[in-house]
Parts: sequence; C-alpha cells; structure tokens
Amino acid sequence: VQFRVRYSETDRMDAVYNSRVLEWFEVGRTEYTRSMGLTYAEVEERGILLPIVEAHVEYEGRAGYDDLLEMTTTASMPSRLKVRFDVSIEHANKDGRVASGYTLHAVTDSSGKPVRPPQWLLDVLQGGEGTE
Amino acid sequence: VQFRVRYSETDRMDAVYNSRVLEWFEVGRTEYTRSMGLTYAEVEERGILLPIVEAHVEYEGRAGYDDLLEMTTTASMPSRLKVRFDVSIEHANKDGRVASGYTLHAVTDSSGKPVRPPQWLLDVLQGGEGTE
Amino acid sequence: VQFRVRYSETDRMDAVYNSRVLEWFEVGRTEYTRSMGLTYAEVEERGILLPIVEAHVEYEGRAGYDDLLEMTTTASMPSRLKVRFDVSIEHANKDGRVASGYTLHAVTDSSGKPVRPPQWLLDVLQGGEGTE
Amino acid sequence: VQFRVRYSETDRMDAVYNSRVLEWFEVGRTEYTRSMGLTYAEVEERGILLPIVEAHVEYEGRAGYDDLLEMTTTASMPSRLKVRFDVSIEHANKDGRVASGYTLHAVTDSSGKPVRPPQWLLDVLQGGEGTE
Repeated sequence: VQFRVRYSETDRMDAVYNSRVLEWFEVGRTEYTRSMGLTYAEVEERGILLPIVEAHVEYEGRAGYDDLLEMTTTASMPSRLKVRFDVSIEHANKDGRVASGYTLHAVTDSSGKPVRPPQWLLDVLQGGEGTE
Repeated sequence: VQFRVRYSETDRMDAVYNSRVLEWFEVGRTEYTRSMGLTYAEVEERGILLPIVEAHVEYEGRAGYDDLLEMTTTASMPSRLKVRFDVSIEHANKDGRVASGYTLHAVTDSSGKPVRPPQWLLDVLQGGEGTE
Repeated sequence: VQFRVRYSETDRMDAVYNSRVLEWFEVGRTEYTRSMGLTYAEVEERGILLPIVEAHVEYEGRAGYDDLLEMTTTASMPSRLKVRFDVSIEHANKDGRVASGYTLHAVTDSSGKPVRPPQWLLDVLQGGEGTE
Repeated sequence: VQFRVRYSETDRMDAVYNSRVLEWFEVGRTEYTRSMGLTYAEVEERGILLPIVEAHVEYEGRAGYDDLLEMTTTASMPSRLKVRFDVSIEHANKDGRVASGYTLHAVTDSSGKPVRPPQWLLDVLQGGEGTE
C-alpha cells in the first residue's frame, strides 16, 4: 500500500514524528486483512478482537513531508494464541528503508477474554502471501 | 489549566500543528466540567453525550515545543439544546495569545437522540465562573 | 481524493475524533495544490508560507472506522492577502455529508512577514476547477 | 510525572490508542531531562540532537478516558554512542501497570552526523536518580 506523509505527521525536525509510524502499521494491518478478503471491522463484528500487546519499531531512514512511501505487511502466528504483523516501510520513489518492525496481538472475544483463533481467522492470517 | 507543548504536537515549521489546538480545547472542556464538580466521563455515564457539531479556531500567535501555555474555558448555552465552550490559550510565561475559539455541542442521550439538558447538567454548565 | 478512516482516528464513541478532520483538511489542501501542478512542498521551497489563521468545521454526520470518504477542496482569495480553502467531506459509498468547513491562511515569506501573493501562486490557486 | 488520558487519545475500543503511548514516552523524556536541569529544547539549542532509532512498547493493562496515570523515566547509555530511556506507566489511583518500554537514540550534531556525547550531556543523563 502506498501513501504520502501528511504535514501533520512531521515534527519540528522536519521528519516523521516517531509515534506516527505505529499509526501507519495499523493501516498496514487493515489493508493486509482486507487483501485477505475480510476487513478488520468485520473481524470485530464477528466477535474477535486483536488487542495489541507489544510493538517494536526500528527507525532506519528519514521521511519528510509529502514523501511517497510504500508499506509491506505480513502476518504470522508465533504461538497458537498470538498474531504477529511484520511491517516494512520504504521510499516508493527512491531507495531506502524508512522503518520496519512488528506488532504482537492477543486473540480475544469481545469481552477481552483470550480465545483460540477460529478457523476463518487462521485462513485470513495464513491465506497467502499477504504482501501489499 | 497549564500545560506544555509536546514535541509530537509541533510540525515541520516548528510550530504547533493546527489540529492539535482542538485536542487542547477538549482538555479545556474536560477540566472545566471537573472544576464544576463532575467529570465528563460521569456525564457520559449518566447517559448524556455532548457530540460536537461545530468548531472554530482563530490562530493568533506562535507556540513552539516546550512552551508553557495557559488555557481558560467557559461554558454557555446559546439555545436550549446547544452547549458552547469558549476557549482562550495564552502563553503562561510571556505576553501573547496563541489561539482562541469555541466548540458547539448538541445534547443527546446515549443513542444519539437530542434531548433537553437535565437540570444537573445545567448546574454544571452554569454553576459559576468556570475559569480554569 | 478518497481515503479511509484509520482506527487511530476514531475515539471511544466509535466516531472520528473531531480534530482529525483538520488533518484531513490539510490532506485536501495538499492534494488540491498538487492537482494544480505544484506541490505544497514546492510552494514552501519557493519561499512562500501559508500559515493558518482561522479554521472552521461543521460536523454534519458520523464516520466510523474503515469508512471510505471523499473529500472535495476548492481555493479562493477573500482578500488580496488571504487564501481560503473550502473543504467538503462525504461518504463515498453511501449518501451523507460528514463534515465541511474552511481554513483561512495568510501569505508570508519564509521569515513570516506578510507578502502579496506572487503570480505563480495566484495561478495555482485560481487556475481551474480544482475539484478533487 | 502525572497526567490524564485525553479523549482524543482513546480509540473505538475505549482504550488508549497504541501509538499515543509513544507520545507519552516523549513527555517522559522531556520531563526527565528537565528534572536533570536542562530542557530538551536547550539540548537542541546546544547543537545536539537525539534522533530515535528504536522504540519498544509492552502493553500491559488498559487505560481509558480521564484515567490518571503516572510515568517514570530513567536514562542510561548502553554504548558510548547511544542513549536509552526506559519508561514505565502505571495507574496513579489504583494498582496496575499500563505500559512499559524503551526508546533508543543516536547522538548527533545538528547536521545529523553521529558524535560522541559531550560531558554536559553525560551529566544530564547520568546525573542522578532521574525518577519522575
């Protein structure tokens, strides 16, 4: 998925403010699940939540206002009860990685109780390449 | 109420990004109702929502990272079904206004249906000076 | 320009948080100037800044997570020294306006001193339909 | 340092949106350096930048709108060219940790070139308990 850096996402060093990268990661997760045939909104409607339990970001290069970036997201299950999304963000018009990292999520019902992931969720998460 | 400009709230012109002022207005509303003896969370728990219908901001001066600002909030009812918060933000350590404006809110029940404000809400909104 | 509501842009009422609309307005301004043949980054490189002096938003309808929205931006000059962008945001997949409003901007050089808009800027601002 | 969760910082699950924690971490860093006798703005004025190279967050508990939180920040130098801030956020009025993690920073001059930290910076970073 490609997107441009918003003015609101820069800080006074004229660079992307660090927390915004986590907002982009979320866009990556949303577009990943959509590409697998189910939106994340539908996941929640089916009574499954994926609350975040851990986030990790490596800031590898600079991105400034209006830069065009390209984000790649993949999903995996490091254990039977955890979902992990790996994200890489690169410049679309020139060489250079901007950031990479992952978020780790529990799988719960709508009350927040951990549950084993239903088969349809496994299909969404493991159903293919998943590269955006 | 006094607060400092966060790094994340600046943009690449080294000034407060314009939308952040609306986040501060919300902090002003929250602290205003708290000073009247009721938190906004409690207002919502009592089944009353105050969805925003209009916002207006005049940007009057510059504020940069780590500046100490002072915000004053007052409430009024321009009609029987609308609540208005007026907010003014000034530098705390030097002269100069940063921004002023207002937000206008409907009064609804938790389903979003407009309702006449209950007496306890009128008391909160009109109960005094309300200057933070 | 079309875009989707990010999870990070919702609040606990499961609706777009009010200040995020001003971030979208900025995306509208950026895409408007790009459609006129000049990016806003290039405007700044040419030594012209357009600092915001006023913002006004009318919240007209609800938008939730992952909704697809469509934004239309037009520019005008209410006086010789001011630039105004009018923005309207509607649902892309169903009827209904989400928000509309405007931002008003001064025209300054890079030191912040007000200047008369150069001809190339007038061309960008008045150069056509400008509807995204 | 104590602070309240802003409405704008919640998401539609009525919980703090994950990226906001990184904004709080930055507030923790700012207040840490201030408590050591130098503001981060002054660090930048002296020609030293601390660009972030890595961030890690563990989400350990829920925080909702208007919750009062308490943040503790400590600094260390895992190598001669890197600064690390460890942050822990807990509920102020009840038991329970909300999040913990760290950010790792390079030390550069204002052009972005890595430099050895000057003595005054070491004093700020190692000058004491530093617990807020």
